[in-house]
Amino acid sequence: MAPDDSEPNEGSEAYPLSPEFVAQVGEALEAGDAAAVLALVEPLHEADIADLIGLISPEERPKLIAALGPVFNPEVLSELDETVRAEVLETAKPAELAAAVSQLDTDDAVDILEDLDEDKRQEVLDVLSAEERTAVEEGLSYPEESAGRLMRRGLVAVPQFWTVGQTIDHLRESDDLPDDFHEIFVVDPRYHPVGAIPLNRIMRAKRPVAVADIMETEPDLIPATMDQEEVAHIFKQYNLLSAPVVDGSGRLVGVITVDDVVDVIQEEAEEDILRLAGVSDVGLNESVRDVSKTRLLWLSVNLCTAVLASWVISLFDVTIEKLVALAVLMPIVASMGGNAGHQTMTVAVRALATRELMPANALRVVKREVLVGLINGLLLALIIGVVAGVWFSSPLLGFVLGWALVINFFVAGLCGVLIPIGLQRLGVDPAVASSVFLTTVTDVVGFFSFLGLAAWILL
Amino acid sequence: MAPDDSEPNEGSEAYPLSPEFVAQVGEALEAGDAAAVLALVEPLHEADIADLIGLISPEERPKLIAALGPVFNPEVLSELDETVRAEVLETAKPAELAAAVSQLDTDDAVDILEDLDEDKRQEVLDVLSAEERTAVEEGLSYPEESAGRLMRRGLVAVPQFWTVGQTIDHLRESDDLPDDFHEIFVVDPRYHPVGAIPLNRIMRAKRPVAVADIMETEPDLIPATMDQEEVAHIFKQYNLLSAPVVDGSGRLVGVITVDDVVDVIQEEAEEDILRLAGVSDVGLNESVRDVSKTRLLWLSVNLCTAVLASWVISLFDVTIEKLVALAVLMPIVASMGGNAGHQTMTVAVRALATRELMPANALRVVKREVLVGLINGLLLALIIGVVAGVWFSSPLLGFVLGWALVINFFVAGLCGVLIPIGLQRLGVDPAVASSVFLTTVTDVVGFFSFLGLAAWILL
Repeated sequence: MAPDDSEPNEGSEAYPLSPEFVAQVGEALEAGDAAAVLALVEPLHEADIADLIGLISPEERPKLIAALGPVFNPEVLSELDETVRAEVLETAKPAELAAAVSQLDTDDAVDILEDLDEDKRQEVLDVLSAEERTAVEEGLSYPEESAGRLMRRGLVAVPQFWTVGQTIDHLRESDDLPDDFHEIFVVDPRYHPVGAIPLNRIMRAKRPVAVADIMETEPDLIPATMDQEEVAHIFKQYNLLSAPVVDGSGRLVGVITVDDVVDVIQEEAEEDILRLAGVSDVGLNESVRDVSKTRLLWLSVNLCTAVLASWVISLFDVTIEKLVALAVLMPIVASMGGNAGHQTMTVAVRALATRELMPANALRVVKREVLVGLINGLLLALIIGVVAGVWFSSPLLGFVLGWALVINFFVAGLCGVLIPIGLQRLGVDPAVASSVFLTTVTDVVGFFSFLGLAAWILL
Repeated sequence: MAPDDSEPNEGSEAYPLSPEFVAQVGEALEAGDAAAVLALVEPLHEADIADLIGLISPEERPKLIAALGPVFNPEVLSELDETVRAEVLETAKPAELAAAVSQLDTDDAVDILEDLDEDKRQEVLDVLSAEERTAVEEGLSYPEESAGRLMRRGLVAVPQFWTVGQTIDHLRESDDLPDDFHEIFVVDPRYHPVGAIPLNRIMRAKRPVAVADIMETEPDLIPATMDQEEVAHIFKQYNLLSAPVVDGSGRLVGVITVDDVVDVIQEEAEEDILRLAGVSDVGLNESVRDVSKTRLLWLSVNLCTAVLASWVISLFDVTIEKLVALAVLMPIVASMGGNAGHQTMTVAVRALATRELMPANALRVVKREVLVGLINGLLLALIIGVVAGVWFSSPLLGFVLGWALVINFFVAGLCGVLIPIGLQRLGVDPAVASSVFLTTVTDVVGFFSFLGLAAWILL
């Protein structure tokens, strides 16, 4: 961008992949005009090129990648959607992959290699230089979704006894620095981190000052085996930009920067949304077969719940035969209870994930949710009770419907909090299973309370 | 932490607010032992102190804050949960607030002041120094949830013609630098940003090098009026650490750092989860009244949906009277269709939010979801058809149930994508309204197809 044509409000800069742009690329591809494709795509950022590849149809992808040539670089590969990347990796030769992998930071290289099958991964590792191989293998040795997988090994560490001047000279003269770093770590002779200095503080200090005098003395140390969700929580809670990662014996082995954590935060929040709806974490590019399969399990469990609810209804078949209005109205109680319970459950699941909901305030939250359930239940019961009473010219039917609704709302509020808390105590992810249990409860209680009250009072 | 007792695996460091710890604080508070409270709480990070205040019961909060004295500093105030902060702000005097606000970065100060009512805010502004007032008022002049509200005004900008040496001398000598900065902006004479230099690049360069020679020449400029969700998307997509914010005429007015964006990403993902369940963005500390109110609207809309579904059932009351098994089985069709549609809808809502779902791939995603719906519908129809056929000794009933399920799954897959896309085209947040529309469709289609087929085939 030339100094003088900066246009602060050009919204298009934020959305380089407009429908028109994607259509243009598609036309150029269909016309087989590789030069035109390249001219369109080359100015894009790697992340946008990766998105573009995911966005166009699977049939056009190989053509696009061929047209891009060297513009399809390792950075683009590492930004690709996982499913699309798996497709690309399948056809790539080990030597090509090794060349790409060796150009990436360790964390990105590990990210790509962990998706390969055992054989292909070994082939790629064999082609890498000894140094790169060791780095990548070490990365792969940490558990999936751990700090060790997230971290980069490139960092700047200086001894405690150095001065600011020595540090700056080191930075100017060393050829071996990482591309990017935001702070300098201070280590003791055993290479244990004892402090960290943000770069701006070094720049402001005079040369003779000792690094030990200006460092932050309590860096937040991240064990390499820590789960990435916990890493994200620490970064968020303490507003960290980067943090040192240490191995089991406390040695500095890498650094995690906040831009890697941003992706984790996004992923973890996304996982919760999808899990609440019974969807595994799959992208838009997954095949029909894989998607069907992952969703089918949850639907099957729900089918059992639905059959259970039907069985409850069947207990009252004689009652329904005598008063068919019950069949007409009964779904209201179950579905409204389900909705109310879902509200409470969603709040609870998220509050557990962000650690706002803790044993210390659990009782208070349960009380609040039960009260909210009762109040909303009473208000809606009043409305629906009158509506049903008028509709079927039976005030008593309205009365029964209203009371069943209040009962179900009370239970929904109670179980909406208790189910996620209970599942977490049992070590089960509350986002995965809460919804099924809750629906079971609100369906069974909904049908049973309405039909039961009706059998008792109306007949 | 002393250099030699670093314990890399102490999980407790990550969870300072253990149940035991919170209980200890509670006991000290009840005993009225302010010194013990202070001894427990003082070592905590500001963000953890803020969490602790939110975690204990509302009755104990004023006692805790009183016991903390100056440990309850402006940073803690700015980290507090919004509802709790509103409570605290209500009782604070304008002079106290002004003192606190003047110690914070502009973005945090604005964040606190925007929650005050008009009168109180004016009182606080009147007590601030002219300079602080101007800064805060300018911050408040930007729309809520815009880049202008997120940004800090403190930044380092140098002219194009400077050298690295001049820049470093400026950093060493200036008293007026922000506490924290990660890059230096290069500006032209009109104060338009023309480049940015990460600090590590300056430190590596020799003194005589011109800043213009080592700067990134195309900084991602953020207009001050840009919505924060869009800002977050840009940071995520391009892995930015910080970005310059410009006003309408392109002048550099502030900087947004990634730690502020982390909160936005978290909030935006959270908003979507909660909205999908019909919950507004409220914390665990909101009062029962406020929570009831915000949830009641969504429940009322759902009540209308439920009544509509009941009306569909009532069209078939004669059919049900003849065959009460229909009443027993009909909730299965509606609820399974609802579940399947919910899966699709959740994927679509998230993909729209993360911009993975675009006009370019919409048709492909719709096709995939319809196919997934049909396949899963057929498989589950087979199971439930056999179950129902055996249960009620009527193969034909099982056949009708199965077909109704397939129809509802097909519609659920189709509408699960089309409803969110359609709502977004209309400018409505798909996370807010999709769920209600979808449930209406799956309920109505579910009951109508099952009871309709039954009336036609079985009777």
